[in-house]
Amino acid sequence: MSVTVVGSTAIDTIQTPFGKASSVLGGSATYFAMAASYFCSVRIVSVVGQDFPDDYFQVFHDHNIQTEGISVTEGKTFTWTGRYNDALDSATTLDVAVNVLENFEPRIPASYQGPDILFLANINPGVQLQVVKKIHPKYLIAMDTMNIWIETKREALLEVIRHVDIIILNDAEARLLTGQAVLPKAARVIASWGPKRVIIKKGEHGAFMSSENGFFVIPAFIQEKLVDTTGAGDSFAGGFLGSLCQSILDKKNTPDEKNYREAVIYGNVMASFTVEDFSVEKLRGLDQDDIYTRRKNILNQTSVI
Amino acid sequence: MSVTVVGSTAIDTIQTPFGKASSVLGGSATYFAMAASYFCSVRIVSVVGQDFPDDYFQVFHDHNIQTEGISVTEGKTFTWTGRYNDALDSATTLDVAVNVLENFEPRIPASYQGPDILFLANINPGVQLQVVKKIHPKYLIAMDTMNIWIETKREALLEVIRHVDIIILNDAEARLLTGQAVLPKAARVIASWGPKRVIIKKGEHGAFMSSENGFFVIPAFIQEKLVDTTGAGDSFAGGFLGSLCQSILDKKNTPDEKNYREAVIYGNVMASFTVEDFSVEKLRGLDQDDIYTRRKNILNQTSVI
Repeated sequence: MSVTVVGSTAIDTIQTPFGKASSVLGGSATYFAMAASYFCSVRIVSVVGQDFPDDYFQVFHDHNIQTEGISVTEGKTFTWTGRYNDALDSATTLDVAVNVLENFEPRIPASYQGPDILFLANINPGVQLQVVKKIHPKYLIAMDTMNIWIETKREALLEVIRHVDIIILNDAEARLLTGQAVLPKAARVIASWGPKRVIIKKGEHGAFMSSENGFFVIPAFIQEKLVDTTGAGDSFAGGFLGSLCQSILDKKNTPDEKNYREAVIYGNVMASFTVEDFSVEKLRGLDQDDIYTRRKNILNQTSVI
Repeated sequence: MSVTVVGSTAIDTIQTPFGKASSVLGGSATYFAMAASYFCSVRIVSVVGQDFPDDYFQVFHDHNIQTEGISVTEGKTFTWTGRYNDALDSATTLDVAVNVLENFEPRIPASYQGPDILFLANINPGVQLQVVKKIHPKYLIAMDTMNIWIETKREALLEVIRHVDIIILNDAEARLLTGQAVLPKAARVIASWGPKRVIIKKGEHGAFMSSENGFFVIPAFIQEKLVDTTGAGDSFAGGFLGSLCQSILDKKNTPDEKNYREAVIYGNVMASFTVEDFSVEKLRGLDQDDIYTRRKNILNQTSVI
């Protein structure tokens, strides 16, 4: 069992009220892959420039993440420089250089054939479309997106949405995409376009899942050690699909509602680790006990006893 | 066992994306009392003008709410006219007339003596202070407040906070009051001033409780039928303290952590009814089954199965 992720690999420079990190490993595919690697075998499809440090490839390899699908292209790696507000729930882009991501044509290596789960991480929906036409995973396709694609590439984005089983996006994006301010209504509109499950990430407030089995909602881990929220959403998706991948592996069958709800909790778990440090620092040193304990803490915080 | 609430009684005119209601019953004490009335005996201390309709007194009496402490004063009742945004999570004040609330001096009738629980609903902290000096409830004092008091009456507000056992406020207010953007940190700062429990209401995202027993967080009921959020926070407080009052009555002892957590859920339950219609309409026709079913639905929506 494996999860293949298509998305960005970036070099980020980030300022938050709690510090600064310069030229660190980032990108939607990166956070996703690191989070998912604790649950399942992960393969990345992405692009970097010739400036991408070997050390960053090593981070992936330390987590047994396959990187044959990361094209090393002439030019520089996508870079993002941003500064967060005090609540760390919104960032101002200070500088962005798309670089090699501009003309990214995803290349699926022969070694990736026969994927079980495909995740279209946040990236230009034109790229996402190329991929859904090339890869037909055995179990499911999930996707993420962001405000700029909703505003500038709506038609392509809607076509991608029609191809996926699960869409994962945040509350502001769900509202922007549908024009519905009330989240369960927004979820119903998106579901009417095709996806069987709609998962809405609510940052510090946790996550919400809508499907034909009803609604599920779980608060985020109550976080006192908040350093940098970059990649929290991608890590959520990694924990979520990683956990689903593991449950398919364990039961040799498609996931049921309980597996999906557990997966949402593991999404929260992985996001809660990511925000405790810059870049993927926290995601590099976890073990299964850390993950299981955090899951238990989230459930205890919501338990009536 | 009884809960005494001191707060505003108002005549509201409200516009939301789902309709308009003119000159309807409102006010912090009103919503609180109606919500709490399903759990425990409730007494109001407030002020109205001579224009306050008898029908509105009848609404209270239909719920066995004692109104001897509502002074009928020369002049007009406090009125508020507001318009909500699409997400119903913020309102613009179109018109406000403080009227008789301006010189409100709370009067505690002899029949209210020996209260068990006191709630200082959202009102000028000067009024709240007068009350805590007059009433010494057997079990506990709780309070709410709002942004204008935090900004304009900070010193009086901090003195009230030092007198209470429990403070209930919303996320924006907690941040404004403490300067701490991260909610668990804001809760710790407030607790350092005296209150043993800090409850932060998060609107559509539910509620968060912090105490020496740790954190508790529960999502709101997933609401598709959203009409008007006015009074949701006051109804939360009514469900919360009403439920605590009932648990003290049942066990003839101070509440424990489980009682507090159940009370937060009943706060969510009562707020979720309030937002389904204008004014206290929805709070007028409930029965115990409605309340118990909604509680179960909230728990099911958060349950891993």
